[in-house]
Amino acid sequence: MTRVHVWGAAGYAAGEAIRLLRNHPLLEIGALESRSHAGQALADHFPALRSTAYRFDDPGAVCARVRPGDVVIAAGGHGEALGFVPGLLAQGARVIDLSSDYRFDAAVAYGLSEWHRDAIATAGLVANPGCYPTAALLALLPLAGIVELQHVIVDAKSGITGAGRTPSIGSLYAEVAGDIRAYGLAGHRHQPEIERLLALGGVRASLTFTPHVVPLARGMLADAYLICRRPPDAPEVRDAFERAYRDSPFVRVLAQDRAPCVAAVVGTNDAELHVDVTGCIVRVICAIDNLGKGAAGQAVQNLNIMLGFPEETGLHARAFVA
Amino acid sequence: MTRVHVWGAAGYAAGEAIRLLRNHPLLEIGALESRSHAGQALADHFPALRSTAYRFDDPGAVCARVRPGDVVIAAGGHGEALGFVPGLLAQGARVIDLSSDYRFDAAVAYGLSEWHRDAIATAGLVANPGCYPTAALLALLPLAGIVELQHVIVDAKSGITGAGRTPSIGSLYAEVAGDIRAYGLAGHRHQPEIERLLALGGVRASLTFTPHVVPLARGMLADAYLICRRPPDAPEVRDAFERAYRDSPFVRVLAQDRAPCVAAVVGTNDAELHVDVTGCIVRVICAIDNLGKGAAGQAVQNLNIMLGFPEETGLHARAFVA
Amino acid sequence: MTRVHVWGAAGYAAGEAIRLLRNHPLLEIGALESRSHAGQALADHFPALRSTAYRFDDPGAVCARVRPGDVVIAAGGHGEALGFVPGLLAQGARVIDLSSDYRFDAAVAYGLSEWHRDAIATAGLVANPGCYPTAALLALLPLAGIVELQHVIVDAKSGITGAGRTPSIGSLYAEVAGDIRAYGLAGHRHQPEIERLLALGGVRASLTFTPHVVPLARGMLADAYLICRRPPDAPEVRDAFERAYRDSPFVRVLAQDRAPCVAAVVGTNDAELHVDVTGCIVRVICAIDNLGKGAAGQAVQNLNIMLGFPEETGLHARAFVA
Amino acid sequence: MTRVHVWGAAGYAAGEAIRLLRNHPLLEIGALESRSHAGQALADHFPALRSTAYRFDDPGAVCARVRPGDVVIAAGGHGEALGFVPGLLAQGARVIDLSSDYRFDAAVAYGLSEWHRDAIATAGLVANPGCYPTAALLALLPLAGIVELQHVIVDAKSGITGAGRTPSIGSLYAEVAGDIRAYGLAGHRHQPEIERLLALGGVRASLTFTPHVVPLARGMLADAYLICRRPPDAPEVRDAFERAYRDSPFVRVLAQDRAPCVAAVVGTNDAELHVDVTGCIVRVICAIDNLGKGAAGQAVQNLNIMLGFPEETGLHARAFVA
Repeated sequence: MTRVHVWGAAGYAAGEAIRLLRNHPLLEIGALESRSHAGQALADHFPALRSTAYRFDDPGAVCARVRPGDVVIAAGGHGEALGFVPGLLAQGARVIDLSSDYRFDAAVAYGLSEWHRDAIATAGLVANPGCYPTAALLALLPLAGIVELQHVIVDAKSGITGAGRTPSIGSLYAEVAGDIRAYGLAGHRHQPEIERLLALGGVRASLTFTPHVVPLARGMLADAYLICRRPPDAPEVRDAFERAYRDSPFVRVLAQDRAPCVAAVVGTNDAELHVDVTGCIVRVICAIDNLGKGAAGQAVQNLNIMLGFPEETGLHARAFVA
Repeated sequence: MTRVHVWGAAGYAAGEAIRLLRNHPLLEIGALESRSHAGQALADHFPALRSTAYRFDDPGAVCARVRPGDVVIAAGGHGEALGFVPGLLAQGARVIDLSSDYRFDAAVAYGLSEWHRDAIATAGLVANPGCYPTAALLALLPLAGIVELQHVIVDAKSGITGAGRTPSIGSLYAEVAGDIRAYGLAGHRHQPEIERLLALGGVRASLTFTPHVVPLARGMLADAYLICRRPPDAPEVRDAFERAYRDSPFVRVLAQDRAPCVAAVVGTNDAELHVDVTGCIVRVICAIDNLGKGAAGQAVQNLNIMLGFPEETGLHARAFVA
Repeated sequence: MTRVHVWGAAGYAAGEAIRLLRNHPLLEIGALESRSHAGQALADHFPALRSTAYRFDDPGAVCARVRPGDVVIAAGGHGEALGFVPGLLAQGARVIDLSSDYRFDAAVAYGLSEWHRDAIATAGLVANPGCYPTAALLALLPLAGIVELQHVIVDAKSGITGAGRTPSIGSLYAEVAGDIRAYGLAGHRHQPEIERLLALGGVRASLTFTPHVVPLARGMLADAYLICRRPPDAPEVRDAFERAYRDSPFVRVLAQDRAPCVAAVVGTNDAELHVDVTGCIVRVICAIDNLGKGAAGQAVQNLNIMLGFPEETGLHARAFVA
Repeated sequence: MTRVHVWGAAGYAAGEAIRLLRNHPLLEIGALESRSHAGQALADHFPALRSTAYRFDDPGAVCARVRPGDVVIAAGGHGEALGFVPGLLAQGARVIDLSSDYRFDAAVAYGLSEWHRDAIATAGLVANPGCYPTAALLALLPLAGIVELQHVIVDAKSGITGAGRTPSIGSLYAEVAGDIRAYGLAGHRHQPEIERLLALGGVRASLTFTPHVVPLARGMLADAYLICRRPPDAPEVRDAFERAYRDSPFVRVLAQDRAPCVAAVVGTNDAELHVDVTGCIVRVICAIDNLGKGAAGQAVQNLNIMLGFPEETGLHARAFVA
């Protein structure tokens, strides 16, 4: 049994990670550190953990209890991991960081499981991808070398848990219910992350990215439109997706007559993809759970890869949050 | 044109009040004071006011601009009105306070419009009722002297705007969506308010009160169960309701075959009531909008009463928030 | 491996049952018969079953394939089971009927698992309880013989899946969202079911029952108010609940400072209960998932009891529907 | 007072039209014909009309009561208007048809108010635009002659009332809540409508159109991405929008730092637009209420244009449906 600690344990992604760790047959839960909720019962904070007896540990608990060979899931706010991850690595722990702190660091493994298995397997530190980048990259990376691109548009729709659990007016029920809103029109943190990984993956094109919030707790649908310089061959495009995900148990390339939807993936680590080609336009639609494949699910998948477990271990049971 | 200022203008009830004041043909809007949002455009804060050019005024604006004959709607947090309302009254303003600060003060008019018209008409200061008390009292007061009560149960369901717009985890979209929760089981601020007004209104009975939050931005349904000492006469009970609200344009006593629902009242100042009798049990169900009849709508209704306008003035147009 | 067939497989309770059966280690799925959806893929109909290859079987499939020792979950509309269940029993199958058809039949085991384990264990036919009766009876039965009752009020709030998957205007998204509605004010099918089981369980009192629909796909909260003839002893009341459910893995009697909520039980077979006593009033609040403990979850629990499996087998994983 | 009849009065767009007609100072309501709901009270069918005494008229009522100079709003299903509109025109009525029946007829005025005022003013029959085409065309038509286009992508998100009030599984609360789904991937009825009007409006480009359903009763957000052959001049693009809608009271071209949202337009006849330019890409985001500007609101706006009333008459009050 490998021990896994969670730093920043009171957020939505952390809660989902704890739910998954708890059901994982080869892992045990260590410290669950939270500055804001230290001492409180997780049962009062996460309804899905109601029947558990866990309590949030005090600040410093992860650092105090970590042992060589342990894994730490760092689920703090952006900017915090830079301060304490080096210390954990020095203590012999391996770390999966859910923040954006290490996603632009060329020395750190970027954890899009299906595309970076080898690097993840041997990494001491994995930068877990953002939710939008996960959906966008799953939709775009298979086409590297297959199409010659002029421009890429990603129009993404997300549930509000992507904004985290720190209270703000924009995340209140009465603000999100009944609304669809575009945001980040002047630039979103995830745009350079997508651009960097596209370039690394050999997809060369400028990107327009528009995120939206829709009235949903969990789930994300991203529509990618690839404007190609010449009409691609539709079977070849489709084949590229089937080859890319043939051995990936969590990614479903849908038959042409089935449309992707969030309900089919929410509470899971699954992604589903639709692909079609019309003239110079390739349209790829990707549905994931922003807390599943877009955060905690992928973190556990990466943990399995790091520890040499089968990729699906502990990831079969659906969550139920909303 | 009477000028109306709003103190604490950034909350949900304040926003709804401003929307109503703006459509009111006999009122003009004065200062819109907000400590937290001073200087910001209301259009960015209240989608329903998107086409307006209002800005939140700085702290002190109401006090500086108020003139004798003006009205102030005080929509601050509980405990704040006690500090500044006396000054406003001394400046010659009339005040409608939406907080609980004056609801237990025997010298202040309690503003349940349908039951206290005379006191409201001449008052300098009106304590606007809480949302739960409004629904409960509209359901219970008609039966004073009609039934002999042993006990009263009020089981109420509310939208989350009743908790205000100050960010908290419990009001986040992802917490409220998909949940029904009971709360305040050890006692809720509105229970003594209901008890006090029942006693003043001649309804003598002990009270059990259970509030709940359901996934809704606005709206409230309260089920009142009156356990009587002997079986009441059903036609007499029904008649009591019809007499009580015969001249009240905002209260509908429904035919027996129609069930009350929030959708029929939300965005309005309406209340709808169902009454039935089985043996010793009278069941009264009341639907209101917690921000309408339960807060801002009733405030404007009271304002109309205070200023001698027809009670419905400016209250015809439905809101659309969610 | 015992084989389980589902009759009426396209409804919400059936979908949830199939999800549970699929994860059950000691059961295998047989025919999935649906008149309305014969031939269609379950993956297109139930997002939670998206990754499966099941198809709905034609009318007659259950009857044709059933063998002695098989179990049939009958999930058809009310009135249909009477027509085909006797034939299945004659073929040697055991049946769990989710409709109301057999709930008033003294010769049939009523399947409220925690209260009728012995009868269920040996039954050929189990009448699975309605969702409202499940919540109400879990809240009321422990007090048989403990309190002397004058009257009982049950005020229940339910998600809309309780109304089934047959399309009707009242179940449309645009009708349910933003509304709270009382219904069945002139009488609801579940009222006599509750009354019958209370009488059988030794709880003697008249009952007022008010169901409501709130904007929720799944989940139910029932508030039971027991008006007693004399003030009960609070510790004795609480003790009655703890004794009643001491050996019931799915029922949580909450500490006094924790309030029940749907989010804590939805997607599970759990029930959680709050109990308090004030004067002559006992208040019991029960939260369940109407499709879980209120339908399919309890059906699988009963199936485990019938087959001699541990009660929790296959019921650990949370669903995620909404 | 001009008399307005509604044919197909039980649908969502019809209900919203009746609400608007009722508040319109220069119109009176005539027959409200419904085959499915004849004889029933509108108060039981449309919560927003709860305080009215209207009843649905029998089939044939519009035809029987229409007089020369009356207007008929035809809100039936697609395919039905072709059968009865010619007769109404022959009786001297003017007709606004909300179905798609006449939207491809070159002899009929297409009713996108802001772009076809002159034709609407003198028309006997107006084909009211679909909701998606309304949003897409408001976003795209200002750029005719301003940019040279290679391709246009419209990614649209809609509330479920766009699917109408006829019950179907896909419109049920439990299907729509918690989901985002793409649909119509093989082609949607509104795509050729958009293409035809773009061509007529001088916008020459191929179109990719992806509609989505999000968990919302009312509202629509359409993101249009225009891929231009050369980088357009940003101030010129912005200026084109400001000129196009300078005299249009219902269309707001937002400042660059404000993002469009459904909450700002829902319940109104408003549209709000964001425009930005990056390299060869123009991004235009348009928010409308699919039942307001996308259906009934625009119908009343067109009615005002036909009758020579100020365009805003009767369209100030917000609806509240959800």
